[in-house]
Amino acid sequence: MNLDQIFISAQEAFLFYKNLPGKEKAEFLDTLADTLEEYRAEIVPLAVQESNLPEGRINGELGRTTGQIRLFAKMVKEGSWVEATIDPAMPDRTPLPRADIRRMLTPLGPVVVFGASNFPLAFSTAGGDTISALAAGCPVIYKAHPAHPETSKKVADCIHVALLKCGLPSALFTHVEGGIAEGQALVQHPLAKAVAFTGSHAGGKALFDLANKREEPIPVFAEMGSVNPIFCFPKKLSHNIPGLAKAFVSSLTLGVGQFCTNPGLIFVPEEQAKDFENAISAELKEIAAAPMLHQGIAQAYYDSIQFLEAREELRWVKVADPKHLINGSTALAEIKAHDWLKDSLFQKEVFGAFAMMVVYQSQTELEEIAEHLHGQLTITIWAEEEELKNQLFLLNLLEEKCGRLLFKGVPTGVEVGYAMQHGGPFPSTTAPQSTSVGAYAIKRFARPIAFQDMPQDLLPDALQDENPLGIWRMVNGNWEK
Amino acid sequence: MNLDQIFISAQEAFLFYKNLPGKEKAEFLDTLADTLEEYRAEIVPLAVQESNLPEGRINGELGRTTGQIRLFAKMVKEGSWVEATIDPAMPDRTPLPRADIRRMLTPLGPVVVFGASNFPLAFSTAGGDTISALAAGCPVIYKAHPAHPETSKKVADCIHVALLKCGLPSALFTHVEGGIAEGQALVQHPLAKAVAFTGSHAGGKALFDLANKREEPIPVFAEMGSVNPIFCFPKKLSHNIPGLAKAFVSSLTLGVGQFCTNPGLIFVPEEQAKDFENAISAELKEIAAAPMLHQGIAQAYYDSIQFLEAREELRWVKVADPKHLINGSTALAEIKAHDWLKDSLFQKEVFGAFAMMVVYQSQTELEEIAEHLHGQLTITIWAEEEELKNQLFLLNLLEEKCGRLLFKGVPTGVEVGYAMQHGGPFPSTTAPQSTSVGAYAIKRFARPIAFQDMPQDLLPDALQDENPLGIWRMVNGNWEK
Repeated sequence: MNLDQIFISAQEAFLFYKNLPGKEKAEFLDTLADTLEEYRAEIVPLAVQESNLPEGRINGELGRTTGQIRLFAKMVKEGSWVEATIDPAMPDRTPLPRADIRRMLTPLGPVVVFGASNFPLAFSTAGGDTISALAAGCPVIYKAHPAHPETSKKVADCIHVALLKCGLPSALFTHVEGGIAEGQALVQHPLAKAVAFTGSHAGGKALFDLANKREEPIPVFAEMGSVNPIFCFPKKLSHNIPGLAKAFVSSLTLGVGQFCTNPGLIFVPEEQAKDFENAISAELKEIAAAPMLHQGIAQAYYDSIQFLEAREELRWVKVADPKHLINGSTALAEIKAHDWLKDSLFQKEVFGAFAMMVVYQSQTELEEIAEHLHGQLTITIWAEEEELKNQLFLLNLLEEKCGRLLFKGVPTGVEVGYAMQHGGPFPSTTAPQSTSVGAYAIKRFARPIAFQDMPQDLLPDALQDENPLGIWRMVNGNWEK
Repeated sequence: MNLDQIFISAQEAFLFYKNLPGKEKAEFLDTLADTLEEYRAEIVPLAVQESNLPEGRINGELGRTTGQIRLFAKMVKEGSWVEATIDPAMPDRTPLPRADIRRMLTPLGPVVVFGASNFPLAFSTAGGDTISALAAGCPVIYKAHPAHPETSKKVADCIHVALLKCGLPSALFTHVEGGIAEGQALVQHPLAKAVAFTGSHAGGKALFDLANKREEPIPVFAEMGSVNPIFCFPKKLSHNIPGLAKAFVSSLTLGVGQFCTNPGLIFVPEEQAKDFENAISAELKEIAAAPMLHQGIAQAYYDSIQFLEAREELRWVKVADPKHLINGSTALAEIKAHDWLKDSLFQKEVFGAFAMMVVYQSQTELEEIAEHLHGQLTITIWAEEEELKNQLFLLNLLEEKCGRLLFKGVPTGVEVGYAMQHGGPFPSTTAPQSTSVGAYAIKRFARPIAFQDMPQDLLPDALQDENPLGIWRMVNGNWEK
């Protein structure tokens, strides 16, 4: 099938699918979750083989994938996500009568999705982007990630099985293989209405630029990762150096450091820097090098480390073991805040289990750091509550720099729920006003439409007087059900 | 003050203002509405003089301006607009406990606003863009429209009076004069976080491109107008040719045709084309030429008409009276759908009281038109309800092309309410997922942030357990208050 045929079929399927009741869309999504479970025994070994990730992790990731499919199914079945808003007519208003105006969200149209290498299931073929687009009512043209082609094909088959079982057009999902040129052609097709991407800064930014240069620019929801700094405060740290060192190292090395929310930057007060460093060193010794997702990623990891090794400002607490074809070896460098502040290159993400430990001396430095910091998916603060009472200005600054602010725990492990925000100011994403994980991710693929004085019979169910869907709606400015 | 000083002061004011309770922001907005009323006698004559619009219209527009200020004041006082969403901790969940995650909208930061020439009050200095940004919690750097400099200064003074009365920093609003270069510099400043614009396609698109080329791209909410087609169906038309001709001409010529929602395109079935044309002609004779906003706009209007006059496909029902320095004269051209479909130049907006009447012969042509149509702010359908029962596919197509679909009345007269959607697919705007009129306009200037395991005392009021603001919140996926 050529590209035009793919998009024309997708557009045709869209005009049918967008008007299906939420219940039917939910049925399809639930069927898809069941189908993926049915094929678990085939999917898991393929994904393990193609990603080098352990079976336990991949099994868990499949659970996460079906879990988020069921969350979106629940949402579209319930139906309130469309923000139905009704301002009834006021025929007797003076000086002018008010028309009847009703607003709701409507799906955008065909969406191009690029899968992530580091989540062969949960952020790939039937991952969060694909599913939130389908849930919103949009067909998906999916560009398979070349790092896990067979896993991708298998999951695509499951999607087609589920579509078939539910009597839905197969053009609602198209699996496209290829390289950069194929991906670019998808983004440039006139019938594409939005793009979702999870991956590198270079990749996401290139797609963003391409989409903005189209005759009709379209939104690009690119999640491009970040260094997810942890800010340590003295009291908190002094109470539990070994525990926090352990937590940090676990998060840093989880999945060989290949997470968007991997903590690659940690700010430590000078007075405890040495002790904390020693505790981290001890923990790092326990971590064996493990295979990364693919050779290209391992190569890029060692290249970045090598580049940093040339910088005199860095003192290496743990050097990466000799470069290996595929295994990623942990590395940790220390730098003074004074030096770190001088060059924003020190904020660049190194994808893998590398972190920079920045030693700060004063409150002034902390605030300078916060001002200087690039946009992040997450920022974590390790402090006793009492230590934060005088830090309101700093907290205020840090809020400006991230999508999620943590006060305990570690940034890795992104909960899929209603309140999750996985996104953040540029350069962590190209779309800080949206999230790519959690319930609100569905809103990326819809836009508002208002109907004025439309006859009841022609109105979508969500906007009819009797509220046949029983959803939450804002009527005359008040929420009601 | 130089640009850096302006933005640094705005950013400083932002970090203070964003954390003020909604009640205090509302107080400021209400004070501003009062202040504008107080200065009505000074503002109105200035705006009349600088816009050539009649006093009645300007008086009404000031009422619309204060009305929308009070709507946003009411919204931020009530507070539910922040989409507070709470997923409480589940410490006993297996296999992993769930952290406490709470999400809400937070303001973006300093916003650059460009005023519109055609609404010297309601879409200018203290217009919808400025007010929705201030309501969201963002300072505004306002680029005054050169067509009404004195009006703009006077309104800016009112904003500063209101800020002073409420003890708020004056840097929350800065009035900047200048031309294109000054406007571009504002958009390019690193501390600017969003841009709002109402005006021409060329202007809006240029700012959009500029903002995307920044080191940190920022969103541009540009409302660039459209031709707002009306689709006439035979039965509806045959029942009331004179009434519909009158309604059409009134909407077309309102404000000398200088509205974003001005109906510049009307599709008419062949069987009634002649009668409808005659009725429109009769109505047009009643309309005297009237002064346009300024000479540049009159010049552009006549240039566009002259350009179209060279096209053989057009038959002129009413030619524009000889070109006049400032008066806009109505004009109407007729074209066969077959010809109209061949060149998308015929969809280009002519800003002023010009319309193209497109005569269609068949259902097939109507669907081709709908597919071919560019993105619009509005589409109006004049049909008997029974005529639409067989037009579901056409309606479906038309929904894809607009932000507001009308089934009665005319597109001009944009209600400021909760359900209004004033926006639409490109090229009518650069941001179809937002509205520039109505309550939801506030969401353009905010982004979500999630707090994980944050101590209660440090959480924003909107997210604290006791719900001290008494707002609507989604808790564990259910709306409650």
